[in-house]
Amino acid sequence: MEPKQLKKLPKATAKRLPLYLRNLKVLDSNNVTRIKSREFAEITQVPSATIRRDFSYLGELGRSGYGYEVPFLIEVFSELLETDEKKRIALVGVGNLGKALLNNNFRRNENLKITCVFDNNPELIGTYYEGYYVHGMDELKEIVQTENITVAITTVPSHSSQEAVDLIVASGITAILNFAPDRVVVPANVSMRYIDLTTELLTLIFFDNEYHYRPSPFLTGI
Amino acid sequence: MEPKQLKKLPKATAKRLPLYLRNLKVLDSNNVTRIKSREFAEITQVPSATIRRDFSYLGELGRSGYGYEVPFLIEVFSELLETDEKKRIALVGVGNLGKALLNNNFRRNENLKITCVFDNNPELIGTYYEGYYVHGMDELKEIVQTENITVAITTVPSHSSQEAVDLIVASGITAILNFAPDRVVVPANVSMRYIDLTTELLTLIFFDNEYHYRPSPFLTGI
Repeated sequence: MEPKQLKKLPKATAKRLPLYLRNLKVLDSNNVTRIKSREFAEITQVPSATIRRDFSYLGELGRSGYGYEVPFLIEVFSELLETDEKKRIALVGVGNLGKALLNNNFRRNENLKITCVFDNNPELIGTYYEGYYVHGMDELKEIVQTENITVAITTVPSHSSQEAVDLIVASGITAILNFAPDRVVVPANVSMRYIDLTTELLTLIFFDNEYHYRPSPFLTGI
Repeated sequence: MEPKQLKKLPKATAKRLPLYLRNLKVLDSNNVTRIKSREFAEITQVPSATIRRDFSYLGELGRSGYGYEVPFLIEVFSELLETDEKKRIALVGVGNLGKALLNNNFRRNENLKITCVFDNNPELIGTYYEGYYVHGMDELKEIVQTENITVAITTVPSHSSQEAVDLIVASGITAILNFAPDRVVVPANVSMRYIDLTTELLTLIFFDNEYHYRPSPFLTGI
């Protein structure tokens, strides 16, 4: 499968690929070699029609009534998401959230790893957390370039988020996951993704209210 | 505006409402009373065509060439998201992530508040963190019902996630935000929302790679 064959892959579809991939790997590790969209829908909680449409963007991955070959799907999706490439990640901000990320450190994905941590708190700089040396922000650029870091996660609070992101961008990193939901300004070549827990919670409550108090056909689809 | 007038509001649109609302409040607090979709697009990083389409689902909110009235939008969106109703939240799991949530405690939204915390670790039960008494899971149901808790956030790791969620569901809560990405089983009347940081990171890297290595028209739209 060549990328040039793929056209018009909507972002919503792309966003679901990691979810598909992770569930396919669980199936594969349980020796499931073939799956139908309806079964996969139950596992992923994505409607089967959405799954079939998503998969259709990726070419001829399955046959009607027969289902999809799990190992083949894993191969295609892995290639697409390029998880076969190891990513070295810088963590900026070593508060409770930073510590939680370090404790977990994406251990279930062998290609994602926080390899260095930074903070601007003089009391933290030079200390260790779980074996990680906490560097000052003035060391960011040099370490990013010598250690081939291409991704950053920032847990720096909103009031300092732009400042932290400016330093990350200046270091040459182009992919940033930001836990401060206030929008910051970055150059067009930088990919920024925000985790906004308040928005997630409001959305959850919104759909919960819809379900319980407005059973009329107010929402459609998934 | 009556809910019954609203039809076919896609989930993708609903998901953006909290983001719109938060940015509208920032504008309002800066005395901006009117905004055009193109300006709002710059602030929210949502394409202006998407904004206009989203807003069109909500009725006649603006006029062509004139823009949208900020206070009116806030009123409509607030009503829709029902943020005028205070939500009392139970936090289950007081590790680093739980502590980070407690430290922040959605302080920028006056209607969202973690009011009680739970863990099953005997060493934590009965202690205090930041003024919060850590209850055992056996107290969950009674506290949820006497204190009118309607939302739970669980930071319990995957291997115990189903067990924790079962107890949350048994307590009567129907809205759950789950930081363990593995899918768990809940009754149809329970709204579950997963925060999957590995998926977020893979998606970020995917789009970053798209931008830098495949500038061809592989992705469309937003």
